Amino acid sequence: MIYFDNASTTKISNLGLESYIKASKESYFNCSSLHKGGLQSNRELNKARNIILESINAQFNDNLIFCSGATEANNMALFGLTKNKSRVLTSVGEHPSIYNTAKALKNSIVDFVPLNSQGQVDIDKYCQMINDNDYDFISIMYVNNETGAINDIPRLVEIAKSKNAKTIFHSDCVQAFGKINVLVDNMGVDAISLSAHKINGPKGIGALYLKNGIHLNPIVYGGGQENGLRSGTENLPAIVAFANVAQDKISNLKQNYNNVLEIKNTILKIFDDKNFDYKINGYKDGSPYILSISLVGVKGEVLLHLLEMDDILIGTGSACSSKSSDNRILSSMGNSKEEVAGNIRLSFGVDNTKEEAEYVANKIIEHCSYLRSL
Amino acid sequence: MIYFDNASTTKISNLGLESYIKASKESYFNCSSLHKGGLQSNRELNKARNIILESINAQFNDNLIFCSGATEANNMALFGLTKNKSRVLTSVGEHPSIYNTAKALKNSIVDFVPLNSQGQVDIDKYCQMINDNDYDFISIMYVNNETGAINDIPRLVEIAKSKNAKTIFHSDCVQAFGKINVLVDNMGVDAISLSAHKINGPKGIGALYLKNGIHLNPIVYGGGQENGLRSGTENLPAIVAFANVAQDKISNLKQNYNNVLEIKNTILKIFDDKNFDYKINGYKDGSPYILSISLVGVKGEVLLHLLEMDDILIGTGSACSSKSSDNRILSSMGNSKEEVAGNIRLSFGVDNTKEEAEYVANKIIEHCSYLRSL
Repeated sequence: MIYFDNASTTKISNLGLESYIKASKESYFNCSSLHKGGLQSNRELNKARNIILESINAQFNDNLIFCSGATEANNMALFGLTKNKSRVLTSVGEHPSIYNTAKALKNSIVDFVPLNSQGQVDIDKYCQMINDNDYDFISIMYVNNETGAINDIPRLVEIAKSKNAKTIFHSDCVQAFGKINVLVDNMGVDAISLSAHKINGPKGIGALYLKNGIHLNPIVYGGGQENGLRSGTENLPAIVAFANVAQDKISNLKQNYNNVLEIKNTILKIFDDKNFDYKINGYKDGSPYILSISLVGVKGEVLLHLLEMDDILIGTGSACSSKSSDNRILSSMGNSKEEVAGNIRLSFGVDNTKEEAEYVANKIIEHCSYLRSL
Repeated sequence: MIYFDNASTTKISNLGLESYIKASKESYFNCSSLHKGGLQSNRELNKARNIILESINAQFNDNLIFCSGATEANNMALFGLTKNKSRVLTSVGEHPSIYNTAKALKNSIVDFVPLNSQGQVDIDKYCQMINDNDYDFISIMYVNNETGAINDIPRLVEIAKSKNAKTIFHSDCVQAFGKINVLVDNMGVDAISLSAHKINGPKGIGALYLKNGIHLNPIVYGGGQENGLRSGTENLPAIVAFANVAQDKISNLKQNYNNVLEIKNTILKIFDDKNFDYKINGYKDGSPYILSISLVGVKGEVLLHLLEMDDILIGTGSACSSKSSDNRILSSMGNSKEEVAGNIRLSFGVDNTKEEAEYVANKIIEHCSYLRSL
């Protein structure tokens, strides 16, 4: 089977699974227990926290709050970093866990900046909106989950902070972390969201990074874990596995990047060599981990099912929006209805090979020829 | 090592860990993906859901919403089943994830019913409060996590519903599920919270049961998973493991109960035979899984550390409140400050043995004789 749906979720790596198993067997104690078992768990918890903080170049006094995943981290950011009557800016391109949550902010005024044709935040519109309004909180994703388009976060932060130094800037870094450099000092952000299961870590674990001094109101109350900011018994086996896979991804970032880039380029070269009719959603130099294309005259979902008969698993849009018939992200980029309907997303991981890329590219061409001939 | 801190968390069983590993390897696909991998994951998700619904005698059209644990389930219940200006009743004996969350309900009026000397909800006060007020939402735990005291949920529900049939009744069943019968039809409840890691399942997974027709407002927004009620990529490996350990616990409920009861009774018999000076917090016939005792003239925390030198791990109060110096639950039961300070909690699991119980009981007597002689 060829799995080209890694932006949706990844298979846990051996390192991730072995870390999980080891911690489950040896450090199953409650991190809040006073006995030596609890202290051991607590040491492992903080070790994992420091590994991830180091991997994003955080300062020693910055915070990392573990939670159940990036969806919760994004909800924590939006609900916990805004106040009554906050003025909030986010983008049309955000993941549903930002987009839908922003719409659920009852007492804030929320604006959505549109995307340009490449799938990035439209920088002119962004500047204009920053100029015209006084935003308390901004959330812009680093890498788009549907197109791989990369936003220039340092520049967006600089524009926002030049207007209002007190603006809190959050970035959903789920599709960036472990794949391209996510360095909070360079980015200038106050908060970022991270996920483990997109980088061959376990499901059900993520984190919200908070720069020192940024005050968060919790959305989940209870025993006061995570410094009172996220209650609930810590999922230590998943946290340890998360830290270990993150460390591994950061160590091998460049090599993994080049491998995945070769996969993406292999597919595009075959398409071009064979004069295949396709359109990239996003742009060629976005994240190599994601290749979103539109195929006019083809229904993406039909192609998906033809490919699965060849044991090739791909996505349409994102898994989180795959059951919805419209697509706000592709539409905001100026795609026609037909281009949206003809969209597929290939997303790559460390286990994929160039040979798989060749096979899939040729299968896509073959099936599209058939579908277009109907 | 002897682990008598199972109410805090348990070690995942082989069944639980193997289920987790198998699903991680074979069903790692995103449940929302449209391809056959996603459909396979989705089938496993719903199979797990049905296993747990069946284990609590739910109706076929009732709901079970998976989330990151019972802390989140309790937060979902309190925030999601109450409205602006709801009148809420809960108890002084609740776990912090109910107690502290109830205090965080900004726009509701929340009352706390006190406990009787045995650690149960004071039934006379409860009746009086129900009589004097019109409650929209009530949350009372089934088994107290610090004392093992069991509340008569069917009776409490009947009293509440006789006054106001529309009252929504939720029960935190974390220390009951898989240990004593938790049958939602007999209990008459509208919602219950469940946790996996208290019954040798994985950490980071729990569920909120909702009777058909009960409307919940989500607290986490995003991709619309769990019928729109709890967004975020489903933690399928943990969900499958949760269902399998739950099924195993229900199948072996009676036998496990008797084993654990023998452990508890063994300890109490040694205490009594040796004229050891102790006081049970709660009552003898509460849940056998928890034995809370107060030892006058002894600091619980000091005893805990002496026992850990013998490789015996126990708790004081609950792990979630162990770092706090006061104890609202034991205080509400009428314990003196000295009795609160002299509290230890022994909590048992399926891996414990009678021999361990004998060893621990004698060690407690030995250390207390020493501490009391100082």
